[in-house]
Amino acid sequence: MSDLLAIGLDYGTESARALLVDVRTGEILSQAVQKYPDGVISEAIPGTDVHLGHNWALQNPEDWLTAAENTIREVMQESGASPEQVVGLGIDFTACTVLPTLIDGTPLCELDNLRDEPHAWPKLWKHHSAQAQADRITQLAAEEKQAWLLRYGGKVSSEWLLPKALEILEEKPGIYTQAAYIIEGADWVTWQFTGNLARNTCCAGYKGTWHKKEGFPSPAFLAQLNPDLADLFESKVAGPMFGPSQLVGFLNAAWAERLGLTQNCAVSAAIIDAHAAAIGSGLSGSGAMFLIMGTSTCHMLMDEKEVLVEGISGVVEDGIVPGLFGYEAGQVSVGDIFGWFVENAVPAGYQIEADQKGLSLHQLLTEKAEQLNVGESGLLSLDWWNGCRTPLVDADLTGLILGLNLKTRPEEIYRALIEGTAFGTYLIINLFEKAGVSISKLQAGGGLTQNDLILKIYADVTNLPIEVASSQYSSALGAAILGAVASGVYPSIDEAVEKMVLPSAKVVTPDPQNHALYRDLFKVYQQLIECFGRDPESPMKLLLAIREKSNQI
Amino acid sequence: MSDLLAIGLDYGTESARALLVDVRTGEILSQAVQKYPDGVISEAIPGTDVHLGHNWALQNPEDWLTAAENTIREVMQESGASPEQVVGLGIDFTACTVLPTLIDGTPLCELDNLRDEPHAWPKLWKHHSAQAQADRITQLAAEEKQAWLLRYGGKVSSEWLLPKALEILEEKPGIYTQAAYIIEGADWVTWQFTGNLARNTCCAGYKGTWHKKEGFPSPAFLAQLNPDLADLFESKVAGPMFGPSQLVGFLNAAWAERLGLTQNCAVSAAIIDAHAAAIGSGLSGSGAMFLIMGTSTCHMLMDEKEVLVEGISGVVEDGIVPGLFGYEAGQVSVGDIFGWFVENAVPAGYQIEADQKGLSLHQLLTEKAEQLNVGESGLLSLDWWNGCRTPLVDADLTGLILGLNLKTRPEEIYRALIEGTAFGTYLIINLFEKAGVSISKLQAGGGLTQNDLILKIYADVTNLPIEVASSQYSSALGAAILGAVASGVYPSIDEAVEKMVLPSAKVVTPDPQNHALYRDLFKVYQQLIECFGRDPESPMKLLLAIREKSNQI
Repeated sequence: MSDLLAIGLDYGTESARALLVDVRTGEILSQAVQKYPDGVISEAIPGTDVHLGHNWALQNPEDWLTAAENTIREVMQESGASPEQVVGLGIDFTACTVLPTLIDGTPLCELDNLRDEPHAWPKLWKHHSAQAQADRITQLAAEEKQAWLLRYGGKVSSEWLLPKALEILEEKPGIYTQAAYIIEGADWVTWQFTGNLARNTCCAGYKGTWHKKEGFPSPAFLAQLNPDLADLFESKVAGPMFGPSQLVGFLNAAWAERLGLTQNCAVSAAIIDAHAAAIGSGLSGSGAMFLIMGTSTCHMLMDEKEVLVEGISGVVEDGIVPGLFGYEAGQVSVGDIFGWFVENAVPAGYQIEADQKGLSLHQLLTEKAEQLNVGESGLLSLDWWNGCRTPLVDADLTGLILGLNLKTRPEEIYRALIEGTAFGTYLIINLFEKAGVSISKLQAGGGLTQNDLILKIYADVTNLPIEVASSQYSSALGAAILGAVASGVYPSIDEAVEKMVLPSAKVVTPDPQNHALYRDLFKVYQQLIECFGRDPESPMKLLLAIREKSNQI
Repeated sequence: MSDLLAIGLDYGTESARALLVDVRTGEILSQAVQKYPDGVISEAIPGTDVHLGHNWALQNPEDWLTAAENTIREVMQESGASPEQVVGLGIDFTACTVLPTLIDGTPLCELDNLRDEPHAWPKLWKHHSAQAQADRITQLAAEEKQAWLLRYGGKVSSEWLLPKALEILEEKPGIYTQAAYIIEGADWVTWQFTGNLARNTCCAGYKGTWHKKEGFPSPAFLAQLNPDLADLFESKVAGPMFGPSQLVGFLNAAWAERLGLTQNCAVSAAIIDAHAAAIGSGLSGSGAMFLIMGTSTCHMLMDEKEVLVEGISGVVEDGIVPGLFGYEAGQVSVGDIFGWFVENAVPAGYQIEADQKGLSLHQLLTEKAEQLNVGESGLLSLDWWNGCRTPLVDADLTGLILGLNLKTRPEEIYRALIEGTAFGTYLIINLFEKAGVSISKLQAGGGLTQNDLILKIYADVTNLPIEVASSQYSSALGAAILGAVASGVYPSIDEAVEKMVLPSAKVVTPDPQNHALYRDLFKVYQQLIECFGRDPESPMKLLLAIREKSNQI
């Protein structure tokens, strides 16, 4: 252990993790996880019988603080490090997870008279009940040809700050008025720790419709949505913008004591969890695309220029690393398609075989699917089980399996589902290349990287080598790197990454012959997109309309 | 038991069944089944090490005779009827199942020097190795705009007599030369029983490219395929044409003795098994369509006029009932799609639940699928797991499931698969209606009629009532009816059917509200046909081409 340590604090959806890292070497000294006591609040407000609507998802801000205290105390104790050694603390967070507060930072939900009021609580990223607001914002921005809309692929997500704020205003104007600030959980935590309110450019850019040169959507635009919304960004979302790794301040006395650290510990501006993972996996310059492959896949890359790419989730200057444009794209469902398949469509005989071999169904299917040649099953799937993010930005799309016959076996479908998601990623890569952003390798993190078949298929489909992140805690490591830079040990994220991220444990290289066959299959995949994805009268859309009609009977 | 009895002898693929029926009432007195000792011969010629090719399927003619003897003796014994009571015998048979014989009817495969010769044996209907010959015949007929091709939906099947005969000629010209006759198994059996060689119009019309007014394809046409084939129909396939129920003769002395019957027993001209089932289920006049619903579905109906319908399997005057045009259409895979699904795509949890409830997986899925409303799953399938017979006549098509999402459950897919096949039948009905043949009700037989959900879906999709055949032995009953008519007890099939076929045990009526939703879904089904079925560059076709390419690597 060297004399310089940093802590990464990784706020996930269900739990928070602290990682204690040696700043000189990147060595992980200890890690600790704590589940949030109230978890994801989707049924009723804790300790009340106030029930929440269908698409609601809240969190308790007190959980964030308790989790920080417990996990940081645990990593310190376990490692035997002394508080003085910890020079930096970085935070990553889910986003957009926002809460309304008083001017001093007190969450409105902690006021006795507002505890029962759902809109007073932090709304988690996956709180989806502001869909109507999101749709109206999209429509108005499109009608007015607002330039900012194109940076987000032409669609405002119900997950973002603007629809969430508008939802409060329209459903509980009193709460909206009482809120001095509407703030990301990420920034609220650094505010608590340091006493300084700073807005991180990552959340602001990707989830808050902010642009470094153009700022936020104008008051005139907001006023058309609701006159009382006009000054949202100038007042309730006000605050200095800080890029990830920029120093927000040092731990204040109360928090130094509570966490068992010192007041010399630098706190970095926060970052979104996915983007922290990109840094913790070694993404720093141009030419590489980082994939977090889990239930969904998030694609990130950086480039020196700003271009518009169809249906991306956002392009943000300083969004990931200061000085570069950070791009984000995504596939809504990836691992959850494979999960759906294993749960719903694999026969009992396979379960027995897996049990006998001591394998999970995923492992058994993978073993069998590895034996297949590219294209031999004659199957192709469209990976839209939960809609399509990039490039179509359309939740109202569905999955498709084509090429079934009486000899089709489960492992053939399993493989076709994996290939379908790989084609989705290849499509995104092609869009970037077409827009002038070139990509020469993939870096990957997330649970799916444990499956070598998936990596192999992605390499063969995209014809790019894939480097797998060396750390399984890449978000928390990324956060620790930000803390290290904020502390001044390293002058830039690039230099910190070079020292603190270990080389990939696993590099998968593409097979040209397989890629040639996959190119043929990809052409068919693109044909299917034209058949089903864009035409409002396509069979896929008509089926959804009939389902709607059926549900109304 | 009245004093007049008839026997129906039903030759299936694996076994033969005899049914002893009271001619006055249709009451079934007894039935017996015997598996063919040699079964379907697809590996090696019995008692030899002569191995057969991939798509070969032969039968042993001796098996047919033994089965007749054993089953007829068994039904007689079991019923206690006396031989004098049996006035008629009818035969139905798989087709086209053809064998080469000497002029006296001796099968070539029974000659000592030809026993080892595969081409000397009867080729079962599902002997598929004459595909190349079938393709050449189709191509030549299409080029020459041969009118007869249109009566068969524009395509010659490898299962028919002409390609099977051409295959013998080209691969073993010596066998072809030695064959005085090439004859359907159906006609060979009536020949054995009576000493009279008659060709039944059902086999000749549906499988032998024969037409009552136009005869067979011309010698000039045949000569272009192979000069030695020119006189095929005039010599090797010669013989008087007899409509089903027409008297071929009486049992000769040897066979009366062997079967335990008398020489007063009339033997009717034979009929194909599926067409016998139509009669045994009560199909007699116009306005009804008969469906045999099993692994595949065969659609039959009769009308006073001859029209051309896209992709049907055949239209034959006197093909089912003398005096009417019999139409046949078909779906290649129906029950076998559901079977594929249950075997390959239903999770272990469902198996456990089925076991606990004492149900089969089909029953469990049916129970669950019955709870669903039309259209609520948002799923639609294209029923081409084994290609499409009517209307596309294309084996190189595959299945498709559209509308999948992360909440899709197995019973939803199961129901969508059933609905897909129902749309396939509705499409066929629409084609007939468009061609001027109107259909006002469905009659159904076959294993799938035991499933009430399937019947309900078919009724709702087609908006037609479905009457289910009262007898589970409708082919054998149909054959017995032919025997009864041949004996002279009834002047026509119509009158025999009226007396001998019991009313439907089950009638399912359509629900207009469901039909309205199904009409919407059917429009989408038709869209999918356009997307995938007809264009040689469609994604479905391209996938098959890639599969081909992959298999060659």
